[in-house]
Amino acid sequence: MIKAGIIGATGYAGGELVRILTGHKDVEIKWYGSRSYIDQKYAGVYQNMFRIVEDICKDDNLKELAEQVDVIFTATPQGFLASVLDEEILAKVKVVDLSADYRIKDVSIYEKWYGIEHKSPQFIKEAVYGLCEINREAVKGARLVANPGCYPTCSTLSVYPLLKEGLIDPSTIIIDAKSGTSGAGRGAKVANLYCEVNENIKAYGVANHRHTPEIEEQLSYAAGEPVLLNFTPHLVPMNRGILITAYASLKEVAQADGSFALPTKEQVRATYEKYYAKEKFVRVLEDGVCPETKWVEGSNFVDVNFKIDPRTKRIIMMGAMDNLVKGAAGQAVQNMNLMFGLPESEGLELVPMFP
Amino acid sequence: MIKAGIIGATGYAGGELVRILTGHKDVEIKWYGSRSYIDQKYAGVYQNMFRIVEDICKDDNLKELAEQVDVIFTATPQGFLASVLDEEILAKVKVVDLSADYRIKDVSIYEKWYGIEHKSPQFIKEAVYGLCEINREAVKGARLVANPGCYPTCSTLSVYPLLKEGLIDPSTIIIDAKSGTSGAGRGAKVANLYCEVNENIKAYGVANHRHTPEIEEQLSYAAGEPVLLNFTPHLVPMNRGILITAYASLKEVAQADGSFALPTKEQVRATYEKYYAKEKFVRVLEDGVCPETKWVEGSNFVDVNFKIDPRTKRIIMMGAMDNLVKGAAGQAVQNMNLMFGLPESEGLELVPMFP
Amino acid sequence: MIKAGIIGATGYAGGELVRILTGHKDVEIKWYGSRSYIDQKYAGVYQNMFRIVEDICKDDNLKELAEQVDVIFTATPQGFLASVLDEEILAKVKVVDLSADYRIKDVSIYEKWYGIEHKSPQFIKEAVYGLCEINREAVKGARLVANPGCYPTCSTLSVYPLLKEGLIDPSTIIIDAKSGTSGAGRGAKVANLYCEVNENIKAYGVANHRHTPEIEEQLSYAAGEPVLLNFTPHLVPMNRGILITAYASLKEVAQADGSFALPTKEQVRATYEKYYAKEKFVRVLEDGVCPETKWVEGSNFVDVNFKIDPRTKRIIMMGAMDNLVKGAAGQAVQNMNLMFGLPESEGLELVPMFP
Amino acid sequence: MIKAGIIGATGYAGGELVRILTGHKDVEIKWYGSRSYIDQKYAGVYQNMFRIVEDICKDDNLKELAEQVDVIFTATPQGFLASVLDEEILAKVKVVDLSADYRIKDVSIYEKWYGIEHKSPQFIKEAVYGLCEINREAVKGARLVANPGCYPTCSTLSVYPLLKEGLIDPSTIIIDAKSGTSGAGRGAKVANLYCEVNENIKAYGVANHRHTPEIEEQLSYAAGEPVLLNFTPHLVPMNRGILITAYASLKEVAQADGSFALPTKEQVRATYEKYYAKEKFVRVLEDGVCPETKWVEGSNFVDVNFKIDPRTKRIIMMGAMDNLVKGAAGQAVQNMNLMFGLPESEGLELVPMFP
Repeated sequence: MIKAGIIGATGYAGGELVRILTGHKDVEIKWYGSRSYIDQKYAGVYQNMFRIVEDICKDDNLKELAEQVDVIFTATPQGFLASVLDEEILAKVKVVDLSADYRIKDVSIYEKWYGIEHKSPQFIKEAVYGLCEINREAVKGARLVANPGCYPTCSTLSVYPLLKEGLIDPSTIIIDAKSGTSGAGRGAKVANLYCEVNENIKAYGVANHRHTPEIEEQLSYAAGEPVLLNFTPHLVPMNRGILITAYASLKEVAQADGSFALPTKEQVRATYEKYYAKEKFVRVLEDGVCPETKWVEGSNFVDVNFKIDPRTKRIIMMGAMDNLVKGAAGQAVQNMNLMFGLPESEGLELVPMFP
Repeated sequence: MIKAGIIGATGYAGGELVRILTGHKDVEIKWYGSRSYIDQKYAGVYQNMFRIVEDICKDDNLKELAEQVDVIFTATPQGFLASVLDEEILAKVKVVDLSADYRIKDVSIYEKWYGIEHKSPQFIKEAVYGLCEINREAVKGARLVANPGCYPTCSTLSVYPLLKEGLIDPSTIIIDAKSGTSGAGRGAKVANLYCEVNENIKAYGVANHRHTPEIEEQLSYAAGEPVLLNFTPHLVPMNRGILITAYASLKEVAQADGSFALPTKEQVRATYEKYYAKEKFVRVLEDGVCPETKWVEGSNFVDVNFKIDPRTKRIIMMGAMDNLVKGAAGQAVQNMNLMFGLPESEGLELVPMFP
Repeated sequence: MIKAGIIGATGYAGGELVRILTGHKDVEIKWYGSRSYIDQKYAGVYQNMFRIVEDICKDDNLKELAEQVDVIFTATPQGFLASVLDEEILAKVKVVDLSADYRIKDVSIYEKWYGIEHKSPQFIKEAVYGLCEINREAVKGARLVANPGCYPTCSTLSVYPLLKEGLIDPSTIIIDAKSGTSGAGRGAKVANLYCEVNENIKAYGVANHRHTPEIEEQLSYAAGEPVLLNFTPHLVPMNRGILITAYASLKEVAQADGSFALPTKEQVRATYEKYYAKEKFVRVLEDGVCPETKWVEGSNFVDVNFKIDPRTKRIIMMGAMDNLVKGAAGQAVQNMNLMFGLPESEGLELVPMFP
Repeated sequence: MIKAGIIGATGYAGGELVRILTGHKDVEIKWYGSRSYIDQKYAGVYQNMFRIVEDICKDDNLKELAEQVDVIFTATPQGFLASVLDEEILAKVKVVDLSADYRIKDVSIYEKWYGIEHKSPQFIKEAVYGLCEINREAVKGARLVANPGCYPTCSTLSVYPLLKEGLIDPSTIIIDAKSGTSGAGRGAKVANLYCEVNENIKAYGVANHRHTPEIEEQLSYAAGEPVLLNFTPHLVPMNRGILITAYASLKEVAQADGSFALPTKEQVRATYEKYYAKEKFVRVLEDGVCPETKWVEGSNFVDVNFKIDPRTKRIIMMGAMDNLVKGAAGQAVQNMNLMFGLPESEGLELVPMFP
């Protein structure tokens, strides 16, 4: 039985970790860390857990926690883990960090976009970016996994194969993203009140959202060259779900007869299948079916599909997932499974709930 | 492995049966019946099931189905099962009926409230009303289970103990109920369109909703006398969830010193605990906590609690559950588990999803 | 041109006052009071008012304000107005108070339910309870109007005629109310976050909501005797709207032939019409039509209707209105119109918006 | 008093026309056409209009209607007006067509994208595309106005000035649009049921939505060359509102010193102001404020703003409006005002409702 500790257990991502790990047959949660609710019953904060979780919330003492558990999940504000992590901790436990602290390899980019000093840059190189479908082997051997951001997970998985195989022009990528409100967290802010979000849609973080460099870094690896792109998130009146709609110009590719032409629908589909046919959690939808967030709610799936526009020679790539599952807690558990040699989908056989 | 067939697999309750049975380790769905989608892929109707269910929808031939499966779930319009059920079928398979056909023992009441003739009244007596917490032993031996209605499940479980133990006056019961829109089904009606339901609340079926006699019958058993009550459902702009708020006048009961007085909070709580302390799926919340539908979403729980108003000598009883789970598919599976001698909660260890 | 000042202009009720008064041809808003946003542009807080309102938010100095305007609206927390109002102010301006400070005639009841000391009880007797349809003449001559609470407005108007005319038993009244989330105000609280309210319904303030004694007082006037009742509010995932579902036992009344019998549907309807046939803002719906909050959204209407249950001899009374309009700002303007001798519906000819 | 007839008065756009015209002091609705509800009370279909509209729904006889009114609004399915319009009608009444029949000048494009034969192409040339801010003078003299589509209104107004002034590259335009569900109409379809739309977002009509050629035609006029673009609409779980997020590459423009450089924020803003500073219904928001649909709900405003991304040299243009008002009925009334020489904003001084 793997003993797990969660720091930030009363945020939405932390709560989802509890939901998923509660159903994971090889894991036992030993520590519900929540600075805001120390000494209060966890089920008093999240009544859905009444009679399921009997524990009390504890503080966020990583050193003590490292003595007691095998793996620590940190669902904490940016900068927290970087400020407390040290070699002593990493020598004792594996860490899956749901914050952005170790996602970006170039610390100057992190510090610029996040506006804070990174307190433990020495671990950045070691940290594995935990996008399992792409970095599976590296994750297996990692002590420290940087769990990807919600938008970057959905964006990268939707675009990666086409970029990697040279079907699209890296300089033309535009990602228009839409997220449910749980992505904004559980902080008590006027902007997140029911009446402010309901019956409303807006863009935010236009041209400066922090997930931009994270997506760019991952797509740069795929393209083999630096990628700059536009990423625009929108706040949607729903609890869960991220949909991304990505645009890029198609590149002419070599055809069977040696000529060059825009890739056909079949070629694009084959490219996606090359990467995802064996992936449990990425579903390439059938021709003509647009991903909908509702079809993946509560599950660890990412649904992807595409449409070619021959008029403009662009391709529209679409991806949908549950931001709290594949976009946070589910992917964190998927990483944990890999790190501990468990079946990758253990505890993640979550059937999407509809309606 | 129990082989199951579902008639009405593409309605919302049918879809939820598929979701739950897909995760049930002892059951295999062999028949996805859906008159509207015959020969179409089930996952084409419910894309959440893409790559999870590969089957094609079939018609609703009960005779053929009885040859192939061990249990049939009918999530069908009122009158359907009554018109096709016969001894030959019941001799071969167990049936869990999610419609109202066999819920009401007095056929004349059924025919009056539902406005249709009952075509097989000979099975009414045999049918067991599948409210597991109350009729557990009878369900275990049943061939035919009448799965309770959504409102009756939540209403009965919230009121039953106090009525049974004589703490409330049966002539004073008023049940004000609120339901999410999945309870209205998947039929294409203007009244159920997004724009008609969203940002709106209304009562419907006032003083004539069909679940009224079903609730009255069950509560009559508890009271040991005929019960007439008011039941008013309301349509709430949300997908899932039923909340009932029930009112009744408290009766004076014998106290320790031999005098008579209104029951105290502790006495009421003890009464609920007497019935539910060992029940897995009924959670009596802690003092002062009002049930919320969100805390049970996706799970088989019913959360109940109460508040005494000493000013009016009434008690307010509250219950919340997911109408598609404990109010339909979950309870149907709970009944199936009992009928087949499986652990009652098999496949139903569903952790509520929040948010 | 009447000069108006608003204290609490950036709350939801205050914002609605601005929306309505902006379209009122005889009123000019001279003071946007908002302690939280002093010196900030009002349209920066409420961008819907961009290019409509150019003013800056000011503090809540009533003395200074009394010099500059003809009428003050206070949409402020309980206790605020009571702590600053004095004869000097009332001698200069008319005041419409949207808080509860002067609604309840018995100061001990106010202090008990609100848990605060009343700082100016000397004005309670003078204050007129501004339920225009019932206290119209008194409002016309008032200096100080206590604008009714949202729940009390809808509850009282739905029940008043039947109680006044002796058709229902005052000891049997139960009011089950449902409100949109704007009623919870614009304070940044976790409980009012989008993800906590959405896809959820719950009761709150069970048996102790502060609007209970206000409703009881008004209905006591109708009954001619003290009324105690149960009032249970629920939070509904929508922005605006209140629906109340009220229950009471019918009393036998004298019939044309001298006998006594339960009132007929026609008699009940005639009773409602007696009070409301000439009322612009109370619409008694046609037989069989249940009020829906969406049908009154954005308007000053209250829609009422009823259903008799001959089985239980109870009547179900229903009322729907927009909590921010007839339940707050609209009624405040209606009161102002009466106080200044304007047509009662001036500025309130708001057509409900659907969908 | 202008006498108006509405064909299609019981759809959502038709209902909004009724709401707006009811408050228009110079217009009287004489004909509520609704083939589905002939001889039924209009207020029985839309209860919000109870006691406001007393009329009965009539059929869609344009010839008879032309005898009785001064202006006809057609909020009808594509192809209807084209199949019945003739010179005799146009000689008698002015027509504002809310369908797409006369929006596109090239009939072959209309027939290709809409998949129907155009039955009266002879009126296409005469018809004025009623985007008032751009074609104001032509509208004034028109007999037949083609009221723009919802997406084209918001898209065109957001992009037009920058394209017209040569600040952006016409070949790089991508429009990602999001719409509330009222845009899908009031037809009883499963896809528009509450439970299918709620808690969900999806793209639809990807690369083939019918509004694409309409937007392209209008932007081609601005660019002075043919424009092809990508337009992707999304369905958002809310009743009203359209938000468009448009992307384009900036072009270098001549600077004060004679050099060429990308336009600055100030230059872009000045360009928007050049076109919209005097426009009542287009609000160019302040620097840094992103348009939100909620801020324009119920009003005739379009809010626009932009953000330059110096990293990618693209500009993100944003626009928000109420799809039923400026995107349909409001703009139709604005056109009518122009056609009849009334003040352009008569009846349209609608203050946005928040929340």
